Amino acid sequence: MTYWSTCPLHIRYADTDQMGVVHNSVYAVYCEIGRTHLCKENGVPYHEMEEDGIYMMVAEMTGRFHKAIRYGESVRIRTGVVRMKRRLMTFQYEIFNENTGDLTYTGTSTHLFSRDRKKTCDLPEKYYRLLSNMMGISDK
Amino acid sequence: MTYWSTCPLHIRYADTDQMGVVHNSVYAVYCEIGRTHLCKENGVPYHEMEEDGIYMMVAEMTGRFHKAIRYGESVRIRTGVVRMKRRLMTFQYEIFNENTGDLTYTGTSTHLFSRDRKKTCDLPEKYYRLLSNMMGISDK
Amino acid sequence: MTYWSTCPLHIRYADTDQMGVVHNSVYAVYCEIGRTHLCKENGVPYHEMEEDGIYMMVAEMTGRFHKAIRYGESVRIRTGVVRMKRRLMTFQYEIFNENTGDLTYTGTSTHLFSRDRKKTCDLPEKYYRLLSNMMGISDK
Amino acid sequence: MTYWSTCPLHIRYADTDQMGVVHNSVYAVYCEIGRTHLCKENGVPYHEMEEDGIYMMVAEMTGRFHKAIRYGESVRIRTGVVRMKRRLMTFQYEIFNENTGDLTYTGTSTHLFSRDRKKTCDLPEKYYRLLSNMMGISDK
Repeated sequence: MTYWSTCPLHIRYADTDQMGVVHNSVYAVYCEIGRTHLCKENGVPYHEMEEDGIYMMVAEMTGRFHKAIRYGESVRIRTGVVRMKRRLMTFQYEIFNENTGDLTYTGTSTHLFSRDRKKTCDLPEKYYRLLSNMMGISDK
Repeated sequence: MTYWSTCPLHIRYADTDQMGVVHNSVYAVYCEIGRTHLCKENGVPYHEMEEDGIYMMVAEMTGRFHKAIRYGESVRIRTGVVRMKRRLMTFQYEIFNENTGDLTYTGTSTHLFSRDRKKTCDLPEKYYRLLSNMMGISDK
Repeated sequence: MTYWSTCPLHIRYADTDQMGVVHNSVYAVYCEIGRTHLCKENGVPYHEMEEDGIYMMVAEMTGRFHKAIRYGESVRIRTGVVRMKRRLMTFQYEIFNENTGDLTYTGTSTHLFSRDRKKTCDLPEKYYRLLSNMMGISDK
Repeated sequence: MTYWSTCPLHIRYADTDQMGVVHNSVYAVYCEIGRTHLCKENGVPYHEMEEDGIYMMVAEMTGRFHKAIRYGESVRIRTGVVRMKRRLMTFQYEIFNENTGDLTYTGTSTHLFSRDRKKTCDLPEKYYRLLSNMMGISDK
């Protein structure tokens, strides 16, 4: 079982589109919010990692849209780490509507690490230890 | 072989993030630009379809990020239809850098149709005929 | 003296641009967050007003950018109502950096009311009473 | 009389909000498109200026929203330089709907120059000469 980090998503009016729901591109931003929240919770504020010269570049994303979210709804995102290697890392996401309990989105993102934002590198030991802590830990 | 619709992407400065490249969430917007361009090219301007009461709701997306895009680069998107059914439709995308010829992103999106933006429906015959035309047509 | 509503702004990584700071267009989104927070705090959740058929359309905006905001910084927005008439309403905004105390942005927005999102209308009595309450009230 | 640079705006579906029109924050992005188009047209591609170490930081913006723009409409932006000094520069914008001829937005933005994105500096002679060319030139 994976450890899940949970945080509220503050839906902005500007996140919606003329279909009256949150635009599909914004889910990638929500995943980023979940991902950075998980990192921070485990001692790795993302902006500090960047200041330290380590970048997490997105390599792959998948997402399934189960039910639309609307402005004014209470939404939470759960984020877990499902794969952790020296050179890459995969996060898993679940976004759900707190009012109805509905699952609205599930997805994954895989990231590579880089120092110069071009070539990939191994994640430094310090971060590897902090972030791999989350694998194989149950939140119950 | 599939028919591919090609159009230029106008990268906005606001599309970039502090990593100095186009933000990962913006690729979903670029795919939407490719998709609506393909539809228009085949006689289905997306805003007219919506005015006609038919919505295309995103059900699934996948994307692979091969190489980052920067503001100031010339970029094109190629979009094709890889699956066409009464109830759903899958598009495929390739974004490439015109200066270097590099492929920067490949992805897919699957859509369901709806009249009320909640329940799904069959795509009306008129649109089905226009959009399914693109299957099995080579651009060579 | 005006009543000021204060709320934290959750800066998203996606809000930044390649200059390494929050993109100028995002400040309008931040103002919207402050504005809807003020409305909610005074008994007018903005999504309920829209469901009730009343829209607040932006007519005018002004903004001064004093100091850039970066991802990772703690930021708050203060919002007040500086003009309240039947047909229009002006909000004032102050965004400040909590770590340094620096004022980063000051601005205003003026809104007209509408039922059909085209023609303007008077704000219904119910909302007028709730929102005009905020004029002439000191928060000290 | 000022020289006006004119370019088409490609409205993205993602630019709209649940009110069914282009979101107010996107107009700042449209102004940026007009501004960078004007600069490019006058021999100053904005990304080259940044690569050269010169940044244009927004100091002030004003905007009036005359009529909403919808997805599917043909829109153009006209941009002019209304003030040009060594340390700052003011642009003026007019966005109009090509189908109806309606003026939808008018605005201004004032920019300071910087080398380190913190302190301001004088605009180097090379750029000053190219950009000040646009003052006092009629497009008729």
